[in-house]
Amino acid sequence: MNFNYPNGRKYVPSEILEVKAAANKKNGSYSNRGMTLEEDLNLTNDYYRERKIAVIHKKPTPVQIVQVDYPKRSAAVIKEAYFKLASTTDYNGVFKGKYIDFEAKETQNPTSFPLKNFHQHQITHMEEVINQGGICFVILRFTRYEEVYLLEAKHLLVFWERMNNGGRKSITKEEIKQKGHYIPLGFQPRIDYIKIIETL
Amino acid sequence: MNFNYPNGRKYVPSEILEVKAAANKKNGSYSNRGMTLEEDLNLTNDYYRERKIAVIHKKPTPVQIVQVDYPKRSAAVIKEAYFKLASTTDYNGVFKGKYIDFEAKETQNPTSFPLKNFHQHQITHMEEVINQGGICFVILRFTRYEEVYLLEAKHLLVFWERMNNGGRKSITKEEIKQKGHYIPLGFQPRIDYIKIIETL
Repeated sequence: MNFNYPNGRKYVPSEILEVKAAANKKNGSYSNRGMTLEEDLNLTNDYYRERKIAVIHKKPTPVQIVQVDYPKRSAAVIKEAYFKLASTTDYNGVFKGKYIDFEAKETQNPTSFPLKNFHQHQITHMEEVINQGGICFVILRFTRYEEVYLLEAKHLLVFWERMNNGGRKSITKEEIKQKGHYIPLGFQPRIDYIKIIETL
Repeated sequence: MNFNYPNGRKYVPSEILEVKAAANKKNGSYSNRGMTLEEDLNLTNDYYRERKIAVIHKKPTPVQIVQVDYPKRSAAVIKEAYFKLASTTDYNGVFKGKYIDFEAKETQNPTSFPLKNFHQHQITHMEEVINQGGICFVILRFTRYEEVYLLEAKHLLVFWERMNNGGRKSITKEEIKQKGHYIPLGFQPRIDYIKIIETL
């Protein structure tokens, strides 16, 4: 039930990070912290749906349920469950009839984006989506400077292969600037990635 | 945390039914039972992916996590969580670049399909997908005779509106035969719904 990346780093699903972040918020330690990338994207997707621009949802975090209690006259309670590694990306939906699929990740690293943020299942899924004619990309945030980029999956696959061939285990920010698209942060929507998609 | 349909029927997520079914299987009471609609569709989607026909996945069941334990040197354990009502349909993905979205339901009723199998959130989602040019439908199984039909969401919406205007709370099998498409059960794939989609 315990997942590790090939580099030995422990897999921590975003739901856990959220639970921890919520606990930290209560303690006040994150009181000055901005919104997470996920929160920004959820607001963006709400905006797109309300304006009928696109219908994109975040998929629920996959959970392996082991034990459920059924108390009388109240809701079923899950008493034991484990986080599962996602077999796909987190976000998908439809824009003008076309299939949209993406993953969103952030890093504290100021100069490069570590590839350990992705796992092989997701990379395979991206390949499948591209082969099926879907629009597939990643949204990368450098949290230090709140910089957000959209990088088409076809480029990510090249960097992934470079790593598998013994090359560097990250994408430099310079490479992301060259191959990707900078998304300026807005008020509404927060991260206007559809605007980039329209230009591709 | 406890959901009920407008008709007062209690909401029981498919995950619970699966846990119960697995328990029953252990007891042997379901030993002669065939595969569920979900199992058939998962196999069908595996087949589509392997043959590069389409990339369709079932979304994980949404769960509201309340308490997580972090034991040392082992995986995080979810100790308290609740089933949430899905805000979208269960299945989506891409076929030849186009967005595919559907919900699958079965009934024991031999002559009509009760509309209480759907909830307003899902109906709203289907409308949004249609407006965005996505391909949206439901797969309906009459378990008694193992009959499976594909019904485009645009027709389901008409029946849903009829109910909201005081009409019948189900779709008759005759109506499904008229407006929908019969899907003969196969060996591989089990439920070849993409074949129907290609003719629409």
